[in-house]
Amino acid sequence: MTNRKTIGILGGMGPMATVEFFRRLIAATPAENDQEHLHILIDNDPGVPNRTDALLHGGPCPVPTLQAMARRLVAAGARVLAMPCNTGHAYLDDIRAAVDVPVVDMIAETARATPAARIGLLATDGTIESGLYHRAFGGRGVDVVVPEPDDQRAVIAAIAAIKAGEPLSPLEERLTAVVERLVAAGAEASIAACTELSLLSGERMPVRWIDALDVLVRSTLRAARVRIGEREENA
Amino acid sequence: MTNRKTIGILGGMGPMATVEFFRRLIAATPAENDQEHLHILIDNDPGVPNRTDALLHGGPCPVPTLQAMARRLVAAGARVLAMPCNTGHAYLDDIRAAVDVPVVDMIAETARATPAARIGLLATDGTIESGLYHRAFGGRGVDVVVPEPDDQRAVIAAIAAIKAGEPLSPLEERLTAVVERLVAAGAEASIAACTELSLLSGERMPVRWIDALDVLVRSTLRAARVRIGEREENA
Repeated sequence: MTNRKTIGILGGMGPMATVEFFRRLIAATPAENDQEHLHILIDNDPGVPNRTDALLHGGPCPVPTLQAMARRLVAAGARVLAMPCNTGHAYLDDIRAAVDVPVVDMIAETARATPAARIGLLATDGTIESGLYHRAFGGRGVDVVVPEPDDQRAVIAAIAAIKAGEPLSPLEERLTAVVERLVAAGAEASIAACTELSLLSGERMPVRWIDALDVLVRSTLRAARVRIGEREENA
Repeated sequence: MTNRKTIGILGGMGPMATVEFFRRLIAATPAENDQEHLHILIDNDPGVPNRTDALLHGGPCPVPTLQAMARRLVAAGARVLAMPCNTGHAYLDDIRAAVDVPVVDMIAETARATPAARIGLLATDGTIESGLYHRAFGGRGVDVVVPEPDDQRAVIAAIAAIKAGEPLSPLEERLTAVVERLVAAGAEASIAACTELSLLSGERMPVRWIDALDVLVRSTLRAARVRIGEREENA
């Protein structure tokens, strides 16, 4: 217990995805009372500039804000950091450069956790264009297929709708059709590679639904030295 | 937007109640994208000693831990603090003494938000015995009825079960029976006055269910200068 590390969460990208990451961390921690839980610090900062805008459209660079959050979390006691935002991982090296504690790599961990020869990628334009998952999967000999332009627009619209708090069920239906077309293109699994999409259940997907946020939960708990057992399966 | 205050949450009492408070704050904030959301800092510290043990059984005093959390949150930028733990409010004056920013009083706000001549109180032994709600409601001429000893043991067992992550539905059923007996004793409303009980829906309760955590959400958003409108109703 005393060897467990305090977790720091770079949050707000988006806020409801941060809530969901926090919820899954708590649900996956074996604990019978408050005192057996983890010390978790969250900085839910809405001031982080939009990552896709910065990567693709010359928008303000999020690096200074991300580095400041990371430093604040470490100053407050965090000994391992995690960021529940896939696109934000384009700046992982910058964040790592700002602090002396480990920062979990959700993208690499997700690629490692995915047993497939070809995967379908549901992500922001920023995540796709920056090649984050293409590099991580490519290094493992796994093909990546992305939605056709019309379908990609539907993915982006769904992400925006989730950020705006719209009901999930109709969005899930629309994305199921997108995944069907990725499967037709040979995908053996589909990756929920935007933490807003992690709010969907994935239950009705026609192929294995690998949620990068779930992978981040497991990797973060391991990095914090929590032994995760059967409780994790019910999370 | 720029006038909004950064919220600091003294969390971990219990962790899942902290998650739920965070979730409701986000859901109640009118926002179309990440950048329109609030800056929220959370210190989910499981090291806070059990409040009821300290109040009633000579357990370790939580004041130093609570004061340290409050100071850490303010040092990180929080300009208004909230604590989603009813029993912890026995130490509200100590927390207020440690920092120069406002700390929302969930108990006083809940008493103010409850239109009834007699209320039933579902709370920990520490909350009941320390007289937190009795004083807040008494000052407004409202009677407080508490469960008979057997029923109070059922309340405490339900709180412990929720902290241990057990399924909510059977617990809700048991507590509905407890509330029925409070209604028979004249209660016109029942107060979910432990943030674990806030995880229950309250839907099947035989009388108005006033959730102190919902009151805390509204009070905290007001203190942070968020204008809350129709989105709050759907939260």
